[in-house]
Amino acid sequence: MADELPNSAADTSKSAPLAHIVFFTLAEPSDANRAKLVEGCKKYLDGHDGIVYFGVGVNAPEYARDVNDRDYDVALHLVFETVRHQDAYQTHPRHVKFVEECKGLWKKVRVFDSRLK
Amino acid sequence: MADELPNSAADTSKSAPLAHIVFFTLAEPSDANRAKLVEGCKKYLDGHDGIVYFGVGVNAPEYARDVNDRDYDVALHLVFETVRHQDAYQTHPRHVKFVEECKGLWKKVRVFDSRLK
Repeated sequence: MADELPNSAADTSKSAPLAHIVFFTLAEPSDANRAKLVEGCKKYLDGHDGIVYFGVGVNAPEYARDVNDRDYDVALHLVFETVRHQDAYQTHPRHVKFVEECKGLWKKVRVFDSRLK
Repeated sequence: MADELPNSAADTSKSAPLAHIVFFTLAEPSDANRAKLVEGCKKYLDGHDGIVYFGVGVNAPEYARDVNDRDYDVALHLVFETVRHQDAYQTHPRHVKFVEECKGLWKKVRVFDSRLK
């Protein structure tokens, strides 16, 4: 957790842009469930303070090279202006509402947080 | 492969925006090697036709929740205007040069390709 870091390290990281990428694996994959989750992301997760890029998509089945990780159904791509904006997003009521409303759709979530350079 | 799809499906997918996300796990993780790979991405992979978003970053160590996948060092985020642009990028000489020059740095690559909605 950022708050456990020494102040200097925390301050440096908190001013950097952050990419927050989430891959959802559905409990019951179907076009209808993919569409529900995509709509949930658009309804609750776009438009938050500090978002500089928002995208939501579905696994592209035509890409199936050995290097492709295909164990997901829906991908959420968010880039925040700073780490502080992503921290505020995590506890925002709209984000909480998204989890409450959509969590029954997925069985696995993988999150990749990276500081952009 | 897209070319193996029926024409109608291939045509639909090829006109859609595509997010192409790559996570590199380094053979020898170090600040120097992370910096080399980040610079390689910037030098060879930005500026290709049809790129609507380019970002490259490093694993953000302060995010270590259970849902965080931390088995990577460098993250590359590319969004292409269409699938056709990403297909052209894959075989572009600058992309080939990137792989030749940087492949010694990583031991694992995971790619997530998704059609944006």
